Amino acid sequence: MNTRSFRRRRWLDRSTLLGSFLVAVALLTAGDSTLTGAQQTSTPTDPLASWNDGAAKQAIVKFVQATTDRSSVQFVPVEERIATFDQDGTLWVSHPMYSQVVYCLDRVPGVVKAHPELADVEPFKTVLSGNREAIGKLSMADLEKILMATLTGMSVDKFQAEVKTWLETAKDPRWKRPFTDLTYVPMLELMKYLRANGYKTYIVTGGGQDFVRVYSDKVYGVPPEQVVGTATGTKYVSVEGGRPYLTKDPKLLLNDNNAGKPEGIHLMIGRRPYAAFGNSTGDRQMLEYTTAGAGARLAMLVLHDDAKREYAYGPAEGLPDTKVGTFPAALHDEAKKRGWVIISMKDDWKRIFAFEP
Amino acid sequence: MNTRSFRRRRWLDRSTLLGSFLVAVALLTAGDSTLTGAQQTSTPTDPLASWNDGAAKQAIVKFVQATTDRSSVQFVPVEERIATFDQDGTLWVSHPMYSQVVYCLDRVPGVVKAHPELADVEPFKTVLSGNREAIGKLSMADLEKILMATLTGMSVDKFQAEVKTWLETAKDPRWKRPFTDLTYVPMLELMKYLRANGYKTYIVTGGGQDFVRVYSDKVYGVPPEQVVGTATGTKYVSVEGGRPYLTKDPKLLLNDNNAGKPEGIHLMIGRRPYAAFGNSTGDRQMLEYTTAGAGARLAMLVLHDDAKREYAYGPAEGLPDTKVGTFPAALHDEAKKRGWVIISMKDDWKRIFAFEP
Repeated sequence: MNTRSFRRRRWLDRSTLLGSFLVAVALLTAGDSTLTGAQQTSTPTDPLASWNDGAAKQAIVKFVQATTDRSSVQFVPVEERIATFDQDGTLWVSHPMYSQVVYCLDRVPGVVKAHPELADVEPFKTVLSGNREAIGKLSMADLEKILMATLTGMSVDKFQAEVKTWLETAKDPRWKRPFTDLTYVPMLELMKYLRANGYKTYIVTGGGQDFVRVYSDKVYGVPPEQVVGTATGTKYVSVEGGRPYLTKDPKLLLNDNNAGKPEGIHLMIGRRPYAAFGNSTGDRQMLEYTTAGAGARLAMLVLHDDAKREYAYGPAEGLPDTKVGTFPAALHDEAKKRGWVIISMKDDWKRIFAFEP
Repeated sequence: MNTRSFRRRRWLDRSTLLGSFLVAVALLTAGDSTLTGAQQTSTPTDPLASWNDGAAKQAIVKFVQATTDRSSVQFVPVEERIATFDQDGTLWVSHPMYSQVVYCLDRVPGVVKAHPELADVEPFKTVLSGNREAIGKLSMADLEKILMATLTGMSVDKFQAEVKTWLETAKDPRWKRPFTDLTYVPMLELMKYLRANGYKTYIVTGGGQDFVRVYSDKVYGVPPEQVVGTATGTKYVSVEGGRPYLTKDPKLLLNDNNAGKPEGIHLMIGRRPYAAFGNSTGDRQMLEYTTAGAGARLAMLVLHDDAKREYAYGPAEGLPDTKVGTFPAALHDEAKKRGWVIISMKDDWKRIFAFEP
């Protein structure tokens, strides 16, 4: 086992996490995997075959039919068919911590190797120490230093290569699989179904735009130009006699969370979505913005209520609280008030992962 | 004539312009409209019918054939076919001043009407005065105040409506036509030709992203999500009981000129273009970045050497100097060195405008 994977394992074995951003939740005790939704036999051609035939699936089909039927008053011209998807907790697993944070922590030894002077500087020293308790007490400012040191300061090409290598080797702690295996099959089906009906699918993520773009096409069928995420600036470097390149600057351009999501959508897309999908408070404004538009709009929130097959957290619906992808009662109330559809992982999804037996 | 159009006329009649950004150039004396390029009879099906059959047209056709032929070593998969176009001076007329600057000056009376306290505040007072000499001496800082006051501070919806109204009523000083009539037919043909061959065409402009997005689809066939431009931030405003909306903030996010062009391309597209088109120093880095990629790349620069049919300025090739869309000898030299193709308006374009007889 090389040093990096050894350090990663230590990270992943840990049950305490970093600060408020990284709080790990022991989620394996709660929940019930009994499938209570109507489970109809799906024909092989059902584009939403992994969905049980409940209110969520019906809402999707009804929306697509209404907006693509030329005789419908809710018809939407194909060029305006924009659907935006949050990523963490909406398209793939985000517990016990965001995959990108695992990446950043895994990268610390590499950063210190390139900059040995950091070995004795906090917070890098603490991360390298492996001291769980000390790491668990790192502040948000410390965490930001780790994110900036591992996500910026290198050329765009080098960053992309590093992420690619990590994705090929890193494994999640629970299923021992590449993180890119932890996507939700019903959501992948939903994306394909929307695309088949003329919708352009975008990822609108609080995660790093450059990070997600490395795998978005392969994993979700979403090309890099359709990924909107938290973005730092780049700097164009012109070298006399050499090839110019872009470096990743530690300057935050867009914090693509909360109000930053509609702001990012305007900046990067310039159109209001007709459909938006999320799972937490960070997606609230995106759904509000989407449904504030005229005509038929579809807003859905994934509720993680399946501790057996995935995780269970809220605290809406009496589920355990969490700081990673919080779905509070207030969001649940707003969803009901505004006609947003809650997707119950437990009841609405026949299958969650492609690797399930 | 209402106050606004009266003020606009006074602006457009003026031959001196604002600061270094706005310098007007008397361009009508130089140049020669004799078409020296080979003028072959084009068949009605020639997608580049407005191009004379010279080196420029041949370079375009050769590039497209090489990158779309599956048997070519230079074949480019369709998803990677990205072509980026500067707007001002590349797709439409930018002399004697940028259309968007005309818009901003035209908007000053409206802004002062909404904020009467500005009537006695500089630089608004000077703009309202109509005093040519005083306006000509406004500083860059003053100009920035005018741009920020007329391009930000309102909701996105209101801004889009204002631009739309202006485009329908404003006319350029020379041809007395809507600004959107002043697009170059050969470039529109080029965009269509590239799109017909699987290329996604983007506008990458130093002009305002939100401004250009209002008309890009109608005028160029480029949807808003494929317009990258100078961008200020927006702010999401949530109103209790009302519809949330976005306001345009005076915070500069991206200065999409010079090095800002490759940076903006990375931010908004995340792929390196295979073809890039510009006309001035502001496009240099975009062309460098494009041609630094592997495989076949096409970089072209429009040279305004046709005073009779449009304008003539450089100062490359001994053309008159200008501060609006400068094409210096150094850029000309770099183009030759790097194999970028110069498009001579005079020699390469059979027709410039759709309204020509």
